[in-house]
Amino acid sequence: MAQLAPELKNDRFLRALARQPVDRTPIWMMRQAGRYLPEYRATRQQAGDFMSLCRNADLACEVTMQPLRRYPLDAAILFSDILTIPDAMGLGLYFETGEGPKFRHVVRSAADVEALPALTAETDLDYVMRAVSTIRRELAGDVPLIGFSGSPWTLATYMIEGGSSKDFPHAKAMLYSNPEVLHGLLERLATAVTDYLNAQIRAGAQVVQIFDTWGGALAHNAYQSFSLQYMQRIVDGLIREHEGRRVPVILFTKGAGQWLEVMADTGADALGLDWTTDIGQARARVGDKVALQGNMDPAVLYAEPAAIRQEVKRILANFGSGPGHIFNLGHGITPGVDPEHAKAFIEAVVELSPEYQAGTH
Amino acid sequence: MAQLAPELKNDRFLRALARQPVDRTPIWMMRQAGRYLPEYRATRQQAGDFMSLCRNADLACEVTMQPLRRYPLDAAILFSDILTIPDAMGLGLYFETGEGPKFRHVVRSAADVEALPALTAETDLDYVMRAVSTIRRELAGDVPLIGFSGSPWTLATYMIEGGSSKDFPHAKAMLYSNPEVLHGLLERLATAVTDYLNAQIRAGAQVVQIFDTWGGALAHNAYQSFSLQYMQRIVDGLIREHEGRRVPVILFTKGAGQWLEVMADTGADALGLDWTTDIGQARARVGDKVALQGNMDPAVLYAEPAAIRQEVKRILANFGSGPGHIFNLGHGITPGVDPEHAKAFIEAVVELSPEYQAGTH
Repeated sequence: MAQLAPELKNDRFLRALARQPVDRTPIWMMRQAGRYLPEYRATRQQAGDFMSLCRNADLACEVTMQPLRRYPLDAAILFSDILTIPDAMGLGLYFETGEGPKFRHVVRSAADVEALPALTAETDLDYVMRAVSTIRRELAGDVPLIGFSGSPWTLATYMIEGGSSKDFPHAKAMLYSNPEVLHGLLERLATAVTDYLNAQIRAGAQVVQIFDTWGGALAHNAYQSFSLQYMQRIVDGLIREHEGRRVPVILFTKGAGQWLEVMADTGADALGLDWTTDIGQARARVGDKVALQGNMDPAVLYAEPAAIRQEVKRILANFGSGPGHIFNLGHGITPGVDPEHAKAFIEAVVELSPEYQAGTH
Repeated sequence: MAQLAPELKNDRFLRALARQPVDRTPIWMMRQAGRYLPEYRATRQQAGDFMSLCRNADLACEVTMQPLRRYPLDAAILFSDILTIPDAMGLGLYFETGEGPKFRHVVRSAADVEALPALTAETDLDYVMRAVSTIRRELAGDVPLIGFSGSPWTLATYMIEGGSSKDFPHAKAMLYSNPEVLHGLLERLATAVTDYLNAQIRAGAQVVQIFDTWGGALAHNAYQSFSLQYMQRIVDGLIREHEGRRVPVILFTKGAGQWLEVMADTGADALGLDWTTDIGQARARVGDKVALQGNMDPAVLYAEPAAIRQEVKRILANFGSGPGHIFNLGHGITPGVDPEHAKAFIEAVVELSPEYQAGTH
């Protein structure tokens, strides 16, 4: 078996992903480089719009590093958007103030799918790879760097709807009326995502996470056919060893509490859990197949520090002793959170988790 | 045991709720009186705003009857809003075009909770009771009438946030920082909902459903403490027999696929299922404790009639043979649906279900 990043100053996150013992539970936060931080808002203003921030490797690196300067986090995550792939395919991503992402062109037919160009991530998404290598260099081995992509289904919903959606009328109509068109789109996206994540790994990402934000909107059987199947293809096609060590992959489907067993069968190293699942029950269900990442309700961060600490304790106790837990929120940190509350959260994990890792609680 | 509504011309729905044999699977649709119907839009325009439609017993009766004139549905459901209780408590419900419901006053402190008046539904919500008795008379025994209320937790979210919310920052902050204040609010709401549903039963509702739209946004353990516990109190306090027959109660928490066992233990007659749960697996988990209502993805109605028919067949097959299934969507029918597609859906249930009920498929 490959060694675990001997040159890393802090390999707690990689060790937990490999379900190996650690001194304390590692922690990072989804969307940790984000609007809740005043320094992020300042850099974003400097960059202009959101995509200009993503396209500028130095500024993307700067916002990636900001939460690490404030908090004792155990991982950095590439600052980028989940819609870079459809944008590179020519759909024309843009953002309107106060609204979600939008596309100038949508994908609604077999002809639209056929017209999508195949991508070569290293050239077509070179700005992402520049950001990855810049961040990796800047981290200087302090903590591992996570690369990421949206899942094929999640990307497809935005491409078909033309933006965010509550009910996914066009994507679901395609799923039920013309499933072969949707499968064609998802196949192309699975290929593109695999190439994109492999390019991030070659550029310096030491872990990758697939964000399946909208998998939980699918019907029970549709989840496996239209989301999980394509994440499985990505897992199968990823570089799993690089620079002499394992490159772990984390699957995160929001709202997937009922589907953990089939997710664990993909060969992923870890599953992200939202807050609707009890992490102790989840652990019993997936056994030793995967590590578990999560699972505090991000809204707990609106509560007082004492209440935050209590929730951290409850989740640590629910997971129980032994390795394989990465602490995280069950979804991204929200813009309205006080950075001091995020600090209280992270400090609670740092202070309370050693006794659980040691099995002495 | 009480008799099943001998005077009803169609008691298929009540029989299925009692897990008794039926000739075919009964069907109704959540939000069946709604914006997808042109005749509904015409009546709503005639009424003026949405609450004026709810407050006018004749017009509320008219829109309740509209889907029954089009489709062979097996139940009618009272046309009203889920926020009538907080409105009657003086919070000042209003609707802004293109946005969800809003309140002029919010509930954020123990003093705010204390200041809420106790309600007597028969007088404080007399317009709802007039609508119930008008509809019941107009139905003339054709099909049973369903009364309903929002769950305490769901009502509380709107009262605390002042309207719809994505992340429930104020409600969750209260839950984690000041749980005793939230419990105080939920206790009052449980009392008010019990009284409200009992008044509907006395006015003529033959079945009641509790809509827990936002229970699925709660963390695993919080669901039981802050939503289910108060629905349990309501179930315990409801009139369960009236006019010489059983008054069944249906619990519907959207996103509750992981919690069906504890929901079935409340003594409810049936559980509503959204589309993320396999209805066959759900049936195996809850056994003979409850009937199951659901569970087609409402977005299937955006697909072609042939695809709709296929999904109906799949769900009937998943449930399998034997009694205890009420066909429904997994959430309300959406405004963009073609009424012809709703017709194809309902006809598919009527045509395909007899062989499953007979066990001859």
